[in-house]
Amino acid sequence: MRVDGTDFRTIWLNDDGESVDVIDQTRLPHRFEILTLRTAADAEDAIKRMVVRGAPLIGATAAYGMALAARADASDPGLKRASERLFASRPTAVNLRWALERMQRRLAMLPTAERAAAAYVEAARIADEDVEVCSAIGESGAPLIADVARRRGSRPVNVLTHCNAGWLATVDWGTALAPIFKAHRAGIPVHVWVDETRPRNQGASLTAWELNKEGVPHTVIADNTGGHLMQHGMVDLVVTGTDRTTRAGDVANKIGTYLKALAAHDNAVPFYVALPSTTIDWRVKDGVKEIPIEERGSEEVTHLTGAAADGNIATIRITPEGSPAANYAFDVTPARLVTGLITERGVCEASEAGLTSLFPEAEAA
Amino acid sequence: MRVDGTDFRTIWLNDDGESVDVIDQTRLPHRFEILTLRTAADAEDAIKRMVVRGAPLIGATAAYGMALAARADASDPGLKRASERLFASRPTAVNLRWALERMQRRLAMLPTAERAAAAYVEAARIADEDVEVCSAIGESGAPLIADVARRRGSRPVNVLTHCNAGWLATVDWGTALAPIFKAHRAGIPVHVWVDETRPRNQGASLTAWELNKEGVPHTVIADNTGGHLMQHGMVDLVVTGTDRTTRAGDVANKIGTYLKALAAHDNAVPFYVALPSTTIDWRVKDGVKEIPIEERGSEEVTHLTGAAADGNIATIRITPEGSPAANYAFDVTPARLVTGLITERGVCEASEAGLTSLFPEAEAA
Repeated sequence: MRVDGTDFRTIWLNDDGESVDVIDQTRLPHRFEILTLRTAADAEDAIKRMVVRGAPLIGATAAYGMALAARADASDPGLKRASERLFASRPTAVNLRWALERMQRRLAMLPTAERAAAAYVEAARIADEDVEVCSAIGESGAPLIADVARRRGSRPVNVLTHCNAGWLATVDWGTALAPIFKAHRAGIPVHVWVDETRPRNQGASLTAWELNKEGVPHTVIADNTGGHLMQHGMVDLVVTGTDRTTRAGDVANKIGTYLKALAAHDNAVPFYVALPSTTIDWRVKDGVKEIPIEERGSEEVTHLTGAAADGNIATIRITPEGSPAANYAFDVTPARLVTGLITERGVCEASEAGLTSLFPEAEAA
Repeated sequence: MRVDGTDFRTIWLNDDGESVDVIDQTRLPHRFEILTLRTAADAEDAIKRMVVRGAPLIGATAAYGMALAARADASDPGLKRASERLFASRPTAVNLRWALERMQRRLAMLPTAERAAAAYVEAARIADEDVEVCSAIGESGAPLIADVARRRGSRPVNVLTHCNAGWLATVDWGTALAPIFKAHRAGIPVHVWVDETRPRNQGASLTAWELNKEGVPHTVIADNTGGHLMQHGMVDLVVTGTDRTTRAGDVANKIGTYLKALAAHDNAVPFYVALPSTTIDWRVKDGVKEIPIEERGSEEVTHLTGAAADGNIATIRITPEGSPAANYAFDVTPARLVTGLITERGVCEASEAGLTSLFPEAEAA
C-alpha cells in the first residue's frame, strides 16, 4: 500500500537475490525505517522482537528465514534446527507453523545443492499468495461496508477495529483492513474507530499510520471506548483480524478483542473477523480451553515508547516502582459472539458448518 | 491511608486556618507532592486539571472552594458566581453539585460576616462525613471478600478493579478499594488486578500506588485483559466505583467499566459497584439515555506522561502526527449487569427497589 506516494510491501527480496528487507514496525509511527535480514537468526529475531508481526507476515518472514537458513546450511539437520528455532520465536501464530511445514516439505524432496534456490522461490510464492489472498479478503468484505453505506445514505460507515490487521500485518492489503481499503478506494465513505490496543499500541501506532498514509478518515480511541460508542449507535460494524481460528469458529486475537465482541453482541452491532484460511487451525475446536495464550514481558505494560517533545524516541515508565504487571497477549472470542468470518473465498458463519462450506477440502483431510 | 509510614488524607486545612492542601494527583505515581489552594479559582483549577479527582474528593474540594470564595467575597452574588464556576469545572460529577448546594444552603441563612467561618466548618464536616461514609462502605463490602476467602481456602481472593476508586478518589479509605483495605487489614489474603485505565491511567498510576503504599498484593494489567482473566477463573469478583448512579441502579463510571461488566456477566463473576449515597442521582433513571458523557481533550489519548530513564517526568506522543483522537471520559453500565451496590448502609440490589430499601428517605423526598 501507499507510503508517501510510493507502493510498498512489508517484506521483499533485495536486488542481491539473497538478503531480505522488512519495514521495522517497532519504529512506527514515528520513523519509517527498513531493516535488512541476512541470516535465519535475523529473521527469528525480527519475529521475536516484533519488527514484523501479524500472522501472515510472520509466516512470510519465517519462509524467507528458511531460505536464509538454506543458503548457510541446507542439510536436513541444518534445516530442522532452523525450523525449530523459527517456530519457537512466536508459538501462538499458526501461520508460522504452516509456512515452516510448507518450506520443509518443499525442500525435503530436493538434493541439498538445489535447496537454497528453491527456498527463495517458495518464499516468494508464499508472499505473492498472501497478497492475492488478502486482496480477495478485501473483495469478500467490502460489500458488507457497501451494504451499510446504502442504508445510511451519505453518513460515513463507522467501522471499529482492534489491533493492527492491516497491510503491515500481512505482505500487502491486510485482513481486517482490506475490506476498508477496498471500500475506500471504491469511493464508499468510511470512517474507522481505531482501538489503541494496549499494551503494544499496534492500533494507535500501526493502524492509524496505515489509514493516515492511505487517506482513510479515522479516529484513535482508548480500548475502553468501544462499548460506549456501540451503546450510542456510533459503530456500524466491527472488523478484526485473528491469529488463530478454531474449526468451530472461535478466534484467538489480540487481548481485548473478546471485550469488543461482547459489546457488539450486547448492542446488536455486527462483529466480523477477517482471516486467510491459513489461520484456521483445524486441529483445535474449543478456543478458550485449547489455545495456549502467550505471556509477554511485563515491561510492555509498565513502559511505553513514543516521540518526545524534541522529536527523539523515548521510553517512559508509567507504573509505580515496585508494582508488578502481567501481559497476556491474546484472548479468545467464542464463535457465538462472531457474526461472520470474512475469508478469501467469501463470508461464512463462524461455525464448523460455515467453515467447511467454504473449505470442504479441509473436512476431507 | 499510609504513605511511607505516615497517615494522610487527600485534602486538609492548613494551620493558618485559611489555605487548603491537596495531594497533587497529576504527579503520582512518580512524585508525591502537595499543592496549596488559596482561592476558589485554585480549587476550580485543581478540579479541572484533575489535581484532585474522584466524585467524593471533588465534592470536598468544591466545599473548601466555597470556603475560600467566602473569605474573599461572601455576598450572595459572589457566592453564586463561585458556585457556578466550581460546578462548571467537572459537570459529570453529581457530588460536585451536591456539595455546592449544601454549602449554598448553609451559607444563605447567615449574615455575610459569619459566612466564611461557617463555610470552613461545613467543608470540614463534609470531609469528615466522607471519611465515615467510606469507612462504612469498607465495612459493608469486606464480608463479600471474606465470603470468597472462606470458600477458596488459602488461595488469595482475586479482585479486579477499574480506574481509581481508592482513598485518593475520596478524603480517605476510598469506595471500591475500601472493602479491599478493610479485608487486607483484617488478614484476609487478597490480590488485586489493577486495570491500567486508559487514557489517564488512574489505575496504573493511582490505584497501583495506593495498594503499593498500603502493602496490598496487586498486578497491573492493560484494560484489554480482564475478559481473558475472567474466562479462565482468575477473577473472583469485580469492584469498581461510580461517578453517578441512577435511581434504577445504572452506574456512570470511568470509560471501560461497561466492558468489564459485560465480561463479568458472561463468565458469572460477581460485579459490584461501591458508592457513597451522595453519588446517587435520584432525578435520573435510564443512565445510557440520560447521562451526558464528558468529552475531554484528545491529547490525553495521543500523549502520555511518565518517568523517563533519567528520572525526569516526560511526555511522549504515541500516535502518528495527523491522526485525530477522541476521548469519552465515562460510560454507563446498565443495572442488569451489576450484581450489587455496596453503600455506607450495606449492600443492595442494583435497582430502584434495592436503593430505596436502604435509602427510604429518598423515595419520600
